[in-house]
Amino acid sequence: MAAELVKNAVGRIVPTEVNGKKQVPFLGNGKYRPEGNRYGPPIVCSKDYPADGNKLVPSLKEALQAAGLKDGMVVSTHHHLRNGDLVANEVFKIASEMKIKDLVWYPSASFPCHAEIMKYLDDGTIHHIEGSMNGPLGRYCSEGKMRGTAILRSHGGRYQAVEDGEVVIDIAVLAAPEADAFGNCNGLHGPSACGGLGFGLADSQYAHKSIVVTDNLVPFPCIPMQLYGNYIDYVVKIDKIGIPEMIVSGTTQITKSPDRLLIAELTAKFCEAAGLIYDGFCFQAGAGGTSLSIGIYIHEILKRKGWRARWSIGGTTKYSTKMLEEGSLEYMLDGQTFDHNAVESMDKNDNHYAISVFHTYDYHSKGFYLTMMDLVVLGATEVDVNFNGNVVTHSDGLLLHGIGGWQNCLFAKCTILPIPLFRNRMPVILDEVTTIVGPGSMVDVIVTERGIAINPLRKDLIDKTKHSGLPIKTIQQLKAEAEAICGKPAKPELEDDIVAIIKWVDGTVIDSVRKVKTK
Amino acid sequence: MAAELVKNAVGRIVPTEVNGKKQVPFLGNGKYRPEGNRYGPPIVCSKDYPADGNKLVPSLKEALQAAGLKDGMVVSTHHHLRNGDLVANEVFKIASEMKIKDLVWYPSASFPCHAEIMKYLDDGTIHHIEGSMNGPLGRYCSEGKMRGTAILRSHGGRYQAVEDGEVVIDIAVLAAPEADAFGNCNGLHGPSACGGLGFGLADSQYAHKSIVVTDNLVPFPCIPMQLYGNYIDYVVKIDKIGIPEMIVSGTTQITKSPDRLLIAELTAKFCEAAGLIYDGFCFQAGAGGTSLSIGIYIHEILKRKGWRARWSIGGTTKYSTKMLEEGSLEYMLDGQTFDHNAVESMDKNDNHYAISVFHTYDYHSKGFYLTMMDLVVLGATEVDVNFNGNVVTHSDGLLLHGIGGWQNCLFAKCTILPIPLFRNRMPVILDEVTTIVGPGSMVDVIVTERGIAINPLRKDLIDKTKHSGLPIKTIQQLKAEAEAICGKPAKPELEDDIVAIIKWVDGTVIDSVRKVKTK
Repeated sequence: MAAELVKNAVGRIVPTEVNGKKQVPFLGNGKYRPEGNRYGPPIVCSKDYPADGNKLVPSLKEALQAAGLKDGMVVSTHHHLRNGDLVANEVFKIASEMKIKDLVWYPSASFPCHAEIMKYLDDGTIHHIEGSMNGPLGRYCSEGKMRGTAILRSHGGRYQAVEDGEVVIDIAVLAAPEADAFGNCNGLHGPSACGGLGFGLADSQYAHKSIVVTDNLVPFPCIPMQLYGNYIDYVVKIDKIGIPEMIVSGTTQITKSPDRLLIAELTAKFCEAAGLIYDGFCFQAGAGGTSLSIGIYIHEILKRKGWRARWSIGGTTKYSTKMLEEGSLEYMLDGQTFDHNAVESMDKNDNHYAISVFHTYDYHSKGFYLTMMDLVVLGATEVDVNFNGNVVTHSDGLLLHGIGGWQNCLFAKCTILPIPLFRNRMPVILDEVTTIVGPGSMVDVIVTERGIAINPLRKDLIDKTKHSGLPIKTIQQLKAEAEAICGKPAKPELEDDIVAIIKWVDGTVIDSVRKVKTK
Repeated sequence: MAAELVKNAVGRIVPTEVNGKKQVPFLGNGKYRPEGNRYGPPIVCSKDYPADGNKLVPSLKEALQAAGLKDGMVVSTHHHLRNGDLVANEVFKIASEMKIKDLVWYPSASFPCHAEIMKYLDDGTIHHIEGSMNGPLGRYCSEGKMRGTAILRSHGGRYQAVEDGEVVIDIAVLAAPEADAFGNCNGLHGPSACGGLGFGLADSQYAHKSIVVTDNLVPFPCIPMQLYGNYIDYVVKIDKIGIPEMIVSGTTQITKSPDRLLIAELTAKFCEAAGLIYDGFCFQAGAGGTSLSIGIYIHEILKRKGWRARWSIGGTTKYSTKMLEEGSLEYMLDGQTFDHNAVESMDKNDNHYAISVFHTYDYHSKGFYLTMMDLVVLGATEVDVNFNGNVVTHSDGLLLHGIGGWQNCLFAKCTILPIPLFRNRMPVILDEVTTIVGPGSMVDVIVTERGIAINPLRKDLIDKTKHSGLPIKTIQQLKAEAEAICGKPAKPELEDDIVAIIKWVDGTVIDSVRKVKTK
């Protein structure tokens, strides 16, 4: 990397140019003011599309050829099929066979099932990835094997980048569990049902060419239309777009770890003591084991008090579906559907409503839902004594996770991170996080199995809970307790090379990820 | 008008500049290729919007002031409240009181209830109207009283103009029968319920500032979200946005005229004989008296044959709702909801699906639904021996109607115009229509009470119906029959001044409307 480096508003060194494009360093939350106009894709004309509405082409290869796939293009996919996705690998396999080079892959997230993509990074088909990398691809990137620099964005930031024209998608390949030949599609029905398709919205609206790939073709009109055929160029029918048991879990499970259950219970008690839960409140529900347990505690509190939550954003599961169906929750706004019960619920319950990252998370909109949330519960790989949070790198410096909606969720009225005090004998609370993904000023509470730390900025929460009997401590106390048990953690061994940058929700660069030293 | 005049592809004289903006003359259907990119409105930032999602301002005046209303702006409204709308007049009353001048009103349609707007044209508040004018405003325009030149577009053409940046909406004022304080809204519930809100979609997506005006404010989230609050700047609660009995009819009625019933019956028989109706076919249903009767005949044919229509586009009423609920129609795609039964049906039936003009009619999209329709039935004020159709002016030259979806519907596989041979002793079939709204090459069949004329281009339809026993005649024969009864009609008395232009679906100018001679 020969690009100029500068120190940004949270003291991190970031490049001013990445992959040949100018970057704005993070200026502090709410400090960057965007200029100019939203991106407008080329004007199209319906006369170039079949009058009978039949946009079927025989194969994905032919669709990519028809879309004009060529060197250097940006190709996007969504991640609603999660770790069961069979489509993204196929796209780049075809591109590789076509001897296409230097593509940019712009997924809304990637998973261990996408390990095959490393082959196409190795052979030059893909230049770099801009998107969350969960697992093997993140490790590959960390080890400095990717030619370009990875760019990680939050879910909302991904929409923002497309909308603002920072990323111009040449070809979007949109896996669809149900579609018609015009390109209308949804994720509700068929062998690969996944619920909503909201992560593909920006792609469908803004890509120059969009390809819907389905294993469940139905006659027009495919209802509901989660994505609209009026934005779609080609439709491809293949045998199988995903592995059902890897797409939705039949068995979302609450945590069984006693420590995690304790953290969940403490979190719920804190919320109750602080008055965060009330009749008509709203919350973001997660699908991780601890989050699910917290959701169950919250459900119990609501029932005990005879209250109802007005709305939630999910990450929907059988647990939140139960809250909805039992009347403890009035409206469930769904950005991602995690298990079979939730998929069925979206299909049958009018108050289980599919929305997209544009609606929940887009910072460059006329308001987004997260700022209205009373309560959000999130994870973190690390936090530091200034409450800065990291969700992308581990303490060994490896980039193994995406940002997801984490940054976007920090805009809630109260953000709580329920985390263990240590993992594999590595303390989770540090002097300084390896990577700053969110500024500490936006993290309100940290709940561990050995105590709860409230951000000093939140005097209101400190006051409300000081006689609660809960183990409220300072973050320094929690850090000291962890270090007393595990010792002071070593810093990760990193080289100077920047392998990835972390964008803030406004498109500025909040941190860089360095190459890890390999033996 | 000092602008240069040219003859376009259908031989009409049109200006090359209107209201200071360059115009492209009609080149023939499918001949104009758009260039450039879709319009991108200014990038906005959520930090400029209330974090609690409450965008309420105390009054429409304050909302307009906050939106920066000033001289020369384009202000848009939708017409879902039809002849019961109370919002549009109020907007311009306020603007007039604020001494604002030279606004452009960009309604999706205007109605007799908007006669008050003439006052604001007279006093200089409004410079001109770009939108369908039904009734008094059309007459006002025809008489040359508007300072600027009116621009009439089809419903689809209105979306196209906004999307392509031909019209940049400064402020959209969107009446909403149900809304939350964030700006999410629908037309399904409340005293002014009107069904869908699809005509406001372009406005919400592209306007620089959008104001939702409701008389039925509900807590967030307002579900379903027909328009999304993420596009809305301000929300205003007023006492009454519309007059319910003028918004939706409690009593949509089929025609009682024996001549019209005969035309309806002949149309249905023709469709059956020509094989246009089959198991799984699709059609556009209208809400006029004759159209409704044709729908009932079609319903009877389907029942008799044991067939089902796969989908329709409406214009929905109690009659099409009945088809849906009795199982003779699988999916009803609804762009406009005309009566109480249809509003209720949209709320309760999942296969009664709200869509917008973008989906059904937008010519500058990757396909639109109308090209897939087997059958569309439309009205006309005049047709000529070349099958050119007019829906905007009467034979006296007065501009009394809007284009609506008429041009967009000509893209169906078969377009039938069931029209009386004469109205008030004025023949409807002429040598030349007063105004060409659609080229004759796209009109397939004309059905009158005295016979049916098939466009010679449709040899297939001629062949299929030649032994049907139906009164198939040439259009010249029909014209001669009318003239034998009524005499040769006089040409309208017009001056040279162009008071309005008629856009084709691609934004080119297909005809001009001249000032009528007044005594």
